[in-house]
Formats: sequence, C-alpha cells, structure tokens
Amino acid sequence: MALPKDPREHRSVESRAVSARLSGFPEFQPAGRVIELSILDRARRVFELHGFASIETRAVEPLATLQAGGETAKEVYAVKRAAAESDDGEVGLGLHFDLTVPLARYVVEQAHHLDFPFRRYQIQKVWRGERPQEGRFREFTQADIDVIGKDTLPFHHDVDLALVMLELLAQLPIPEPVLLVSNRKLAEGFYRGIGVSDVVGVLRCMDKLDKVGEQATRGALVEVIGLTERQADACLALSKIETADDSFVAKVKALGVSDPLLDAGLEELAQVLQAGAAERPGAIVAALRIARGLDYYTGTVYETVLPGMPQMGSVASGGRYDELARDGRTVFPGVGISLGVTRLMSVILGAGVVHTTRSVPSAVLVAVWSEGERTRSNAIAQQLRRRGIPAEVAPSDAKIGRQIRHAERRGIPFVWFPATEGEPDSIKDIRSGLQVPADPTTWEPDAEDWWPRVSSTSNT
Amino acid sequence: MALPKDPREHRSVESRAVSARLSGFPEFQPAGRVIELSILDRARRVFELHGFASIETRAVEPLATLQAGGETAKEVYAVKRAAAESDDGEVGLGLHFDLTVPLARYVVEQAHHLDFPFRRYQIQKVWRGERPQEGRFREFTQADIDVIGKDTLPFHHDVDLALVMLELLAQLPIPEPVLLVSNRKLAEGFYRGIGVSDVVGVLRCMDKLDKVGEQATRGALVEVIGLTERQADACLALSKIETADDSFVAKVKALGVSDPLLDAGLEELAQVLQAGAAERPGAIVAALRIARGLDYYTGTVYETVLPGMPQMGSVASGGRYDELARDGRTVFPGVGISLGVTRLMSVILGAGVVHTTRSVPSAVLVAVWSEGERTRSNAIAQQLRRRGIPAEVAPSDAKIGRQIRHAERRGIPFVWFPATEGEPDSIKDIRSGLQVPADPTTWEPDAEDWWPRVSSTSNT
Repeated sequence: MALPKDPREHRSVESRAVSARLSGFPEFQPAGRVIELSILDRARRVFELHGFASIETRAVEPLATLQAGGETAKEVYAVKRAAAESDDGEVGLGLHFDLTVPLARYVVEQAHHLDFPFRRYQIQKVWRGERPQEGRFREFTQADIDVIGKDTLPFHHDVDLALVMLELLAQLPIPEPVLLVSNRKLAEGFYRGIGVSDVVGVLRCMDKLDKVGEQATRGALVEVIGLTERQADACLALSKIETADDSFVAKVKALGVSDPLLDAGLEELAQVLQAGAAERPGAIVAALRIARGLDYYTGTVYETVLPGMPQMGSVASGGRYDELARDGRTVFPGVGISLGVTRLMSVILGAGVVHTTRSVPSAVLVAVWSEGERTRSNAIAQQLRRRGIPAEVAPSDAKIGRQIRHAERRGIPFVWFPATEGEPDSIKDIRSGLQVPADPTTWEPDAEDWWPRVSSTSNT
Repeated sequence: MALPKDPREHRSVESRAVSARLSGFPEFQPAGRVIELSILDRARRVFELHGFASIETRAVEPLATLQAGGETAKEVYAVKRAAAESDDGEVGLGLHFDLTVPLARYVVEQAHHLDFPFRRYQIQKVWRGERPQEGRFREFTQADIDVIGKDTLPFHHDVDLALVMLELLAQLPIPEPVLLVSNRKLAEGFYRGIGVSDVVGVLRCMDKLDKVGEQATRGALVEVIGLTERQADACLALSKIETADDSFVAKVKALGVSDPLLDAGLEELAQVLQAGAAERPGAIVAALRIARGLDYYTGTVYETVLPGMPQMGSVASGGRYDELARDGRTVFPGVGISLGVTRLMSVILGAGVVHTTRSVPSAVLVAVWSEGERTRSNAIAQQLRRRGIPAEVAPSDAKIGRQIRHAERRGIPFVWFPATEGEPDSIKDIRSGLQVPADPTTWEPDAEDWWPRVSSTSNT
C-alpha cells in the first residue's frame, strides 16, 4: 500500500533516491561519524574546560556583508526562496563562509547581553563555492574559539588561544602539529622601516610566496610593486626567518631595520614564542612568512601544519583583529583560531590508521526467543539503559545464529540471552565466545566496551 | 593600527556589524544556548542508549528532489554560487527542509555500507521559507530518529519509536506531552469501506479539519469531493474518536464499516496503544483525526502536543513510510519521528520557568594578583582543568573586587586566590562568601557546581 495515489502529490521516491553524490559535500558512514563525533566531543570538552561558552549563529548573513571582502566574494553561496518573486523586497542572503563574520555581527547585536571579554566557541558548518580539491570542501565543519573585548583586549589572550588549540590538537589522532605564528605589526613595521610605501601590495605578494616561489615573488615585488632589488631582498630575507624560540628577534634585528611598529610586533611575537617554549616545546614556531591572506588581522596570525602533509594546508588558523566589529563609538577587538574539522577528518580517514570499535552505540544486543517474548527482551534492554548501558533488542526472532551475526556485523560486543526454563539470564561476549549468567540489574560491561572507542595505530 | 589600508580589500566592519536581525532565524544568547545544549545532550544520550547511530547529511539536495512534492515546493530555499554563470551546467541545489528526504537519499547511496535494519539519529538544522509565526521558523533544529529496513521492517519498530521519543520528552522541562497517534491504513480502509473512491481527496479535507473546523470540512467533503451526507457524517464521526487505550477499536467497529485494510490499521494502532498503556499510561492517545498532511506516510502517524499550548502545533511528529526510498528492485521501508528542538526552545524560553546556573562553563575564576604573576594563575587553572574542572583566569590584574564581579556577572561560583607570602592558596565561594585554603591538585567543586546546570521551577 502506498498513499497518496495522486501522482502530482506523491514525491517521486526514485528520483529522490538516485541523485549523484555531490563533489565537495562530504558525508560520512556511521563509523566515520563516530570518529568525527569523538573529535567534536574533544573540542567541546577542551574549550569548555577553558571557560569558552558555546554559541551558534544562523547559517545566513546578508549577501552584502559576505561580499564586502573582494577576495572571497566569488565563493559565497547565495540563498533565495525558490518561490520568491524577483522583486519582493527581501534582503539578499548568503550562506556564511566562516564563523568570524557572523560572530562580529552577533557580538554587536547582543553586546548589551554579553559580558566582556567574551570567550566563545562555535562549532558549525560553513560553505564556500570553491573548486573542490584535496583538503578543500564546499561544505565543512569549523570549530572556532575567540575572545572578544570591548574597547581593549589584553595581548595575553593571543598566547592563551594558541595553547588551547595545541592542547586540543595533542589529543587527536594526527601527526604532531606545528603552530606557525607571525605578526602583522612586525611585517608592516619592517616594510615601512625599509622605506616601502605600498605595504598592502607587499603583503599581497608575500602571501603568495608559498604558492609561486621565491623567484616569482621577487619579480612581483620589483616589477609590480616597484621595490628596489635591495628592498625585495630584505622582504625575502625576513620571510625566511623561522625559529622555535624567540631567537627570531635577533635574526630580524640583524637585518638592520628599525621601526617602532616592528618593535611592537617583535615584542608580541616573542611573548607567544616564550610561552610556547615553556608549555609545549617545539610546538610553536615563529615563521615570518605567514600572512593569512589580506584578511582582517592586525597583529598575531596563526597557521597550523601537519608534518609531511603540506598539501593539506593549515588545519587551524586565525589571528588578532583589533577592529573586527564596531558599533558607534564602541570597538570590539578580538583574537581567534579556527579548527578545520572536516579537513582533519580527511587527513585522519585518508591515513587509514584510526578505527572505531563499532559503528553503533549499543554495547549489548538483547536476543529475542520469539515475537511473543519480545516484551521480556525489551524490559531487559530498558533495565540496562536505565543504568546507562546502551542496548538494542534483536529486530526479529530469527535463529540465534543470525541474531549473533546481527551483533557481529555492527561490532556489538555482547549478546544477552533472556532466561529460559531452567536457565537464568546470561550474557555472551561474542569476541571470546564466553557466556556467563548475568543479572540485568547489576551486570556492567568493562569501561572500554561501554561506548564505541576510537583508537589509532599511530599516536592517540 | 589597522591593516590592510586599501579600502577595496578591507571588509567594511561597520556594515557587517549592523545588519538587522532576521525574522525566523533565531539565535540564542549564551545562557539560552546552555539550555539548548542540555536538550541536545539529552536527545543524544537517549537515542544512543537505544542503539541509534549518529549521521549527518549535507545541507543541500538537488532542487528537483526537494520540489518533487507539490505542497512544500514553495518553502524551499534555492542555493547558488553568487559568482556562478547563469548557464554553467551546475545542478540546481536547495537547502533541505527536513531530515527524512536526505536520509532516503543517504540510505540508497550508502546501502552497501549499512547494516539493516539501520537505526540512526540525526540532529541538524533545516530551512523552510515559510512566513515566520509563533513556533515556526525559517531555520530550525530537528532531532530525528528513524529505523530503516531493507525489503521489510517489522511493525514493532513503530511502537518502539513512540516510546523512545516519550522517554526523551519526559526528561525535558516542558508540560507533560501527549503523543497522538493514528494510522493511514485505518483511515484509508475506512473511507473505502464507506464507498469513497477519492480517498486522497478525503484525506486532504480531513487534514484541514483542525484549521477550518467541522462545518467547512463537511462542506468540502460533500461539495468538492462529492460525498453523500451520510458518508461525510461517517468521516467526521471517525475523526472524533480519541482514546488513551485500545477502546478506539470498539468505537470504530460501532460505526459499522468493514474493510480488510481498516482491520489491518486497527490491529497496528491497537499494538501502539497497548504498549503505551503498559509503559507510559496516558502518554499515548489514539486520535483518529491525525493525518500528517499528504506526506509519504503509509501506516502509523505521530504528532505530539503540549497541554494548553495548541498554538505551538506538534513538537514531535512522524510516521511509517513503507516506500520512502527504492533502488532498482530494493525497497527501503522506514518509520521515524522528528523532534522540533527550536520549537521546544521557544516553548521553554517563552514560559520563562527554566534557568541555568551560569552562562559560561567555568566553575572557577583564578584571580591574578599582577600581570607579572599571571603565569602562576595560569598554572593553577591548568591543574584544575587536568582534573576536569572548567576554569578561566581573570583577564586582567584589576582590583580583586572587580575580578570577583567578573565571576559574579557570569555566575561563576568560585574565585581562586593564588598563594601570597604567608598565605596559602585559597578558594572563595562567592555566593556564601566563605573562603577556605585549597590545593589545586586536590580541590573539587560539589557535583552540582561542576558544570552549568539547567533547572526548572515547574517539572524537570
């Protein structure tokens, strides 16, 4: 029986079902989702232990807001009611491409209800209409932490955020990451110090250094921006400085450039490196080539790379923005860092070294002797659940061998057999085959069998 | 300092900040989000205890799929790259308006990787371009559970799902809900049994009964569908039957209509009512007027109402669909129920009886005597976090009174004072004012102060 019969009203289930998979819109199988959830749970726990409050923002922002930055405009997805009249006066909307622009809007709208500095985390999907390629998606999940001040925001937050993100990354099954950090003040001060007038032009060139190489960058600096050979050399010399402690300061000073903004940037960056060396030796590296595009950053900038995986790009990026949002005379400076969860997932699934013990939450499958006795099996499962043990009941009274295979296929470690005449309730560990009498009001699985567990053959 | 200076490249932070709030796109303040998270956490826990596996699907589906059903087509949001050429051959996409259509597609695509029956939960945003009104939003969160079979799916799942959703609802701070249930087979069989040929037409009329009233419905049945007065009377008599046990069977039989499909529907619905009466007396009510639109349902249909809040509509709805998805010769029958999380939130926040103990995760604010001693405060906070105690460090070395107010405003219950010369570390409960010596390697808050707690002045 299938209702309704009217073909106009009946959704075509076939056409709905066979749509091709969409490039750039990843979906995980249940076992993959167990791994993703374990990352999201870790992120939430680390962020909350550090006092970050959760918020979510709507998926859409006014198109005009999203397209205000020239560089990313082409990546925005516009959203429109399919049935909207072309001229019905609705504001043009688009899907957010990050969580920072929505945060700025949220902070201004909610400023009177927020306490500053406002520490928030936000784990949501974002959308970019980019050409899909390795590590790049059109829909992906970000996990962001930001601290937003009102009027001012002490610099120590720039240090704290780097350490919080490293604390999270250290708990994930990935190669040990390196957080590369630089400072916009340092770069801008240096360029001014060598007499460059088009600072933005130089920043734009240097941002493409990793992509186009040194020679092309030098060419652009000289021919497009109009630098002298000596100025170009100085810029490239700066970009090569990379140290895992604050010795970058001496290396920059050895270049013989002097500027108050440069000094301020050196001082800030040194603080990050000193804290990194104390807390996580080797995990934070000053890398003066890091520019983070031509974004809203005004001081510290972060990128995070995984050793041996340059093609993946940065898995956690961000920086300081001294004027992300403004409301009349109030300015809201902030610093934030964003974890690319979907990109991390593609690293983890691609490496194939991470596994989950099962694809379903259930620790126990309660067998059903016959449909007439299903109520008894339900009651046993319910007794287990009341004590926090995830359990499901066999979907049919098939032969016991088939019920055990139902558990096996899903990785459910235990099958419960309800009491029969003369036999008490018993539970079978289907991995060892061991079957023992058990009481549904007291039996417990081992801690490691309680919930699906994610494990790694490299580091965890 | 604000970089870059080039106005073309610099995103206008002001225009970004002052966008008006969008009607139908709710956003919560941090305290509201604590309440929402507590609902989502409960949902996840109940679903996982019952063995449902988590999945997420992409936000977009092909527009053609979303618009295949005539009724909802106008509510779909189309999505398009803002920079796309009008004729670049990309498939038209739209935002999903529920989680059932995406599930059907996912199941067919992933069928070879899934084990059936496939029990899944899915908690995601959905979008509908409807006119916003009380309890209706353009972006909202749904929490769905479904069981999908391959070829067949035993009826007991229809009973199980109702009980799982009631188990969750019973844990939420809302008036005790009533799950109204009916059955499409029952209705269709009854209409056939009284000699109606246009069964879909009658279903369509009856679906509007609650909105337009009895008189208008009778008029439509007679004048539009062409029923006799007697047939119309019978339809309305059926729609009035509502019982909290299986006595509806006798009431339907008393109407003197006979049809094999009617009998099958009565038998199925009676099973749901009998299980409901045994497990949660009074919580499940057979209400034969429930039709759930002209959707894909083929048997059981569910709606859930909150007493005294008819304007809210149903907070949890769903039903059985024997042919939601099909792939060649394989059919995937399913049964599902969807919790309207955002609608529930508007009930809960609207009632104003639910509160959270604080708007941030932190249980402890570690005071900072001076910026030079910040490292010591950081170390104390880190010792607490390592033992799972959420802590933040005062953002500045302001006067201690101001630091305490920082905690007070956020509802943080404890302020930690690092040791000073002659004074050991101490912790102050700022609610009682009590201050006692404390060791950061052993001190613990009471369980109820550990994390933000959501409490209700009505039921919890």
